Amino acid sequence: MKFASYKNGQRDGQLMLVSRDLTTAINVSDIAPTLQYALDHWYQLADKLEARYQQLNEGRLHGVTFQASRCESPLPRAYQWADASAYVNHVELVRRARGAEMPATFWTDPLMYQGGSDDFIGPRDDIILPSDEWGIDFEAEVAVVTDDVPMACSETMAAERIRLIMLVNDVSLRNLIPGELAKGFGFFQSKPASSFSPVAVTPDELGDAWQSCKVHHRLRSTYNGVLFGQPHAGKDMTFNFAQLIAHAAKSRNLRAGSIIGSGTVSNRQDLSEGACIGEGGVGYSCIAERRMVETLLHRHPSTPFMQFGDKIRIEMLTDACQSIFGAIEQRVKPLD
Amino acid sequence: MKFASYKNGQRDGQLMLVSRDLTTAINVSDIAPTLQYALDHWYQLADKLEARYQQLNEGRLHGVTFQASRCESPLPRAYQWADASAYVNHVELVRRARGAEMPATFWTDPLMYQGGSDDFIGPRDDIILPSDEWGIDFEAEVAVVTDDVPMACSETMAAERIRLIMLVNDVSLRNLIPGELAKGFGFFQSKPASSFSPVAVTPDELGDAWQSCKVHHRLRSTYNGVLFGQPHAGKDMTFNFAQLIAHAAKSRNLRAGSIIGSGTVSNRQDLSEGACIGEGGVGYSCIAERRMVETLLHRHPSTPFMQFGDKIRIEMLTDACQSIFGAIEQRVKPLD
Repeated sequence: MKFASYKNGQRDGQLMLVSRDLTTAINVSDIAPTLQYALDHWYQLADKLEARYQQLNEGRLHGVTFQASRCESPLPRAYQWADASAYVNHVELVRRARGAEMPATFWTDPLMYQGGSDDFIGPRDDIILPSDEWGIDFEAEVAVVTDDVPMACSETMAAERIRLIMLVNDVSLRNLIPGELAKGFGFFQSKPASSFSPVAVTPDELGDAWQSCKVHHRLRSTYNGVLFGQPHAGKDMTFNFAQLIAHAAKSRNLRAGSIIGSGTVSNRQDLSEGACIGEGGVGYSCIAERRMVETLLHRHPSTPFMQFGDKIRIEMLTDACQSIFGAIEQRVKPLD
Repeated sequence: MKFASYKNGQRDGQLMLVSRDLTTAINVSDIAPTLQYALDHWYQLADKLEARYQQLNEGRLHGVTFQASRCESPLPRAYQWADASAYVNHVELVRRARGAEMPATFWTDPLMYQGGSDDFIGPRDDIILPSDEWGIDFEAEVAVVTDDVPMACSETMAAERIRLIMLVNDVSLRNLIPGELAKGFGFFQSKPASSFSPVAVTPDELGDAWQSCKVHHRLRSTYNGVLFGQPHAGKDMTFNFAQLIAHAAKSRNLRAGSIIGSGTVSNRQDLSEGACIGEGGVGYSCIAERRMVETLLHRHPSTPFMQFGDKIRIEMLTDACQSIFGAIEQRVKPLD
């Protein structure tokens, strides 16, 4: 199934089922008014939603034209948003660029931070911030949404509790990060509101591309109209989503609707020739990583962070070039 | 007004108004089914709830006997839980005990971490964890619940957006903290589910004790039946709640129902004679602080962290010894 939440003036939006090809959508409020409600009652409602979804795809229901511009993030607000750094290559580059060793345990013990989840922005909404001197960056990621997950659950059980998959733009304020991390309590002001793809999909929608709890497609980031990165989300993901969920649930239950992010998608590349798209590489899912490689190669970064007016588009395509989740497409704008 | 959420088999509980003296309660689901709903629609609903509350206190409505044992946390799950360390004395002791200097900016720039909010435990529910070798500790705190708060808001506006006040037991796993903070991403596994007082109250309920966005009463922690701490929550709070909210909203909006915590309530004391209750001090709001003082005085801590079976009670009384929020009262139990 594919789900979207249309803007309707309410805090949680209006649940819509979207056809597999993303052309049509249908209001399913008679089954579940919101996506959180559907997740809260998944066992009672999934079959009904599935039946409606099949009818929609078979053209037996009169849907409306699907418009990503009408979308909230699938969960406009959520009770849990925990983001990992599962592509350890990215973390290693961060460390190398500042001349620090990465602890060996980073390959066996996931990095994860607790994100804020009360005010996500829509996939086509502007990223509004008071200043573009804070080092505004996008981070293209994959995320899953879980059902209830009991404390201390196994990876096998964690895998079974994955209900939905979506894309994320985990907006980061790079210039605020060093000061905040130095305080020792992790990110807060440096991680403003994230946005998610117009559509969240059940794992079966990915077919063979959902294997070992990883998404086996490239994640495309287009920055100001130029392809900036297309690393493969199935490669170099050191911890799969089942491992990340089990990590998150070590000392707590996760409740239905919990979002667990992969962290910036990043592939290990031969840096000697550069790793940008124009240099034959797969590019990057955030500006910071490109700046790290620039620092490693040339001693200092040359790509600036986002300025007001800059635009980022994040999307994932099937092998047949069909958009799976719709595109996140946002401009950075100043707070009035 | 005083609000509670009774357990009703639903994820958000049943909203109840509780009489000022905490003796009777009344179901107000005809106005708002849940506390989150009331907060989402505060401007439309507050007057109706206020009228009902007055009738309840005047004995003109037939309530039921209020039972704290039937309570969820006022918000059984929330969209935002950010916890500060506003009593900087506590932070300074942490640092001194490990021989580290505290940066001077800690007196001017609040420490705040992003907490998890999808699965709070009820005020009388057991604290269930897989191991008591993780250094289980309570942390007695005060918290506020906000209405919508716009990004970059002033402290004056932040103060006006405080809707509710409650107590917190911010359970911490002390032995997991050093490893987690060393990874650089802040707390995650070391901060399991928190619990909140049976009742959340509007600021006017505190009368003169709500001044300068601080609560001017002692916060009493009773550990295994013995008074462990009664520091004054109005003293030594370096950042008041308006400042903490403005800090949290620097780069994001906060949405209705956001919970902002004070951090462990702690008073500056003359440590030369010891600062425990039995030594004439005001004691502590967590075991870790007592262990720090033991370390400073005797080079090593002697009070162990909580073991399975241990019990913590957290309460705040008026000058007339009336409980304001009801008591958090919990035992630590092993996960089956």
